[in-house]
Amino acid sequence: MSDDLIHMDAPSGWEIEGKNVALVREFVFGDFSEAWGFVSRVALLAEVMNHHPEYTHSFSRVKFRLSTHDAGDVVTGNDHALARAINKLARS
Amino acid sequence: MSDDLIHMDAPSGWEIEGKNVALVREFVFGDFSEAWGFVSRVALLAEVMNHHPEYTHSFSRVKFRLSTHDAGDVVTGNDHALARAINKLARS
Amino acid sequence: MSDDLIHMDAPSGWEIEGKNVALVREFVFGDFSEAWGFVSRVALLAEVMNHHPEYTHSFSRVKFRLSTHDAGDVVTGNDHALARAINKLARS
Amino acid sequence: MSDDLIHMDAPSGWEIEGKNVALVREFVFGDFSEAWGFVSRVALLAEVMNHHPEYTHSFSRVKFRLSTHDAGDVVTGNDHALARAINKLARS
Repeated sequence: MSDDLIHMDAPSGWEIEGKNVALVREFVFGDFSEAWGFVSRVALLAEVMNHHPEYTHSFSRVKFRLSTHDAGDVVTGNDHALARAINKLARS
Repeated sequence: MSDDLIHMDAPSGWEIEGKNVALVREFVFGDFSEAWGFVSRVALLAEVMNHHPEYTHSFSRVKFRLSTHDAGDVVTGNDHALARAINKLARS
Repeated sequence: MSDDLIHMDAPSGWEIEGKNVALVREFVFGDFSEAWGFVSRVALLAEVMNHHPEYTHSFSRVKFRLSTHDAGDVVTGNDHALARAINKLARS
Repeated sequence: MSDDLIHMDAPSGWEIEGKNVALVREFVFGDFSEAWGFVSRVALLAEVMNHHPEYTHSFSRVKFRLSTHDAGDVVTGNDHALARAINKLARS
C-alpha cells in the first residue's frame, strides 16, 4: 500500500475507521426484505471482484466494513473500488 | 376451487394460462444482478406465504408461473395473493 | 420475559453474551460461497419466524447475535427458537 | 463453435437437448430452502464466470438449461464449464 492510498478521500458516504484501517458505511432500508435484496446483489459484486466486504445485517440496516486482510488489515485500492461499486448499486 | 375463482380477473400485468391453469408474468430487469435482487426478495415472500412460485430466470428476465399443485394445478386465491405481493415488490 | 428464560441454557454451540443480552454463535465455512448459501437459508427462516438475527458475514465466517429488541434487547424464547432452527439448518 | 464441441460428451448427469441446443439437468432437493441455498450459490458462480444459466425453480426442484446465446443458442465450452462447476457445487 502506498502513502497515496492512506490519503485517498473516502468514497461518498463512507468513513475511514482509525488510521486507514477500514472504510465503513451503513445503509438503512425500509425493511428486512429490501435490505436483503441489496445484500444479495453485493454478494454477487464481491465474488466478481474477488474482494469481500465484512458486513453486519440487522433487520433493515446493513453496515459494511471494508479492509484488505492480505495487506495487513488496511484500506487499499480494492476497498475503494468495492465501496464505489456498492455506492453505484445503492443509487440504481 | 370455486367458480368464482375461475372468473377472477388476473392481477395487473398477469395473464391467465389456459383455462385457469396458471397466472403468468414476466419481468425484465436491467441485468442479472437486478433480476437476482428481485428473485431474492420473492423467495422470502414465498416462504412467508408458504406458497411458492415456479419461476424461470434467464439473465435479466424472470418469468413467474403461479399455480396451486394441491388444488389440482389450477389457479387459486393463494396464487392471486402471491401475484399481488410480487406486483407490490416490483413497484417498491 | 420470565426469570425462567434468563436461566435457560444456551442451545448447543451458542454462548450467552453478558447477562442474557444475546445468544452468539460463529459458523466457519469453506469459502464465501458456502457461507452465503447458509446465510441465504437463514434469511428465509428469519422471515418465516418473523424474528431476524443480527449477523456479521466476513468471507467464510458468519457470526450470529440473537436478541429481542422489543423486549429491551434481551434474550427471549424467540431467540432460543431461532438459534435452534439455525442449528438444525447447519446440521442438514 | 467447432465440430469438436458438438461431439463433446455431456458432463455427468446432464443431457443434451436437441442437436447440441442446450445442456439440461434437474436437481431435486429436500425442500424450498435447500433448493434456494443451491440456487444462491449458482448465482455467484454465474456472475464470476460471466455466463448465466437459464434455470427454472419450482419448490424443491431446480432445472438448469445451459446454452450460449451469443453463439446462436448452441452449447459451447462455456456451457460445459458451467455445468461442471454446478456439478462440483452439488457434490460439496
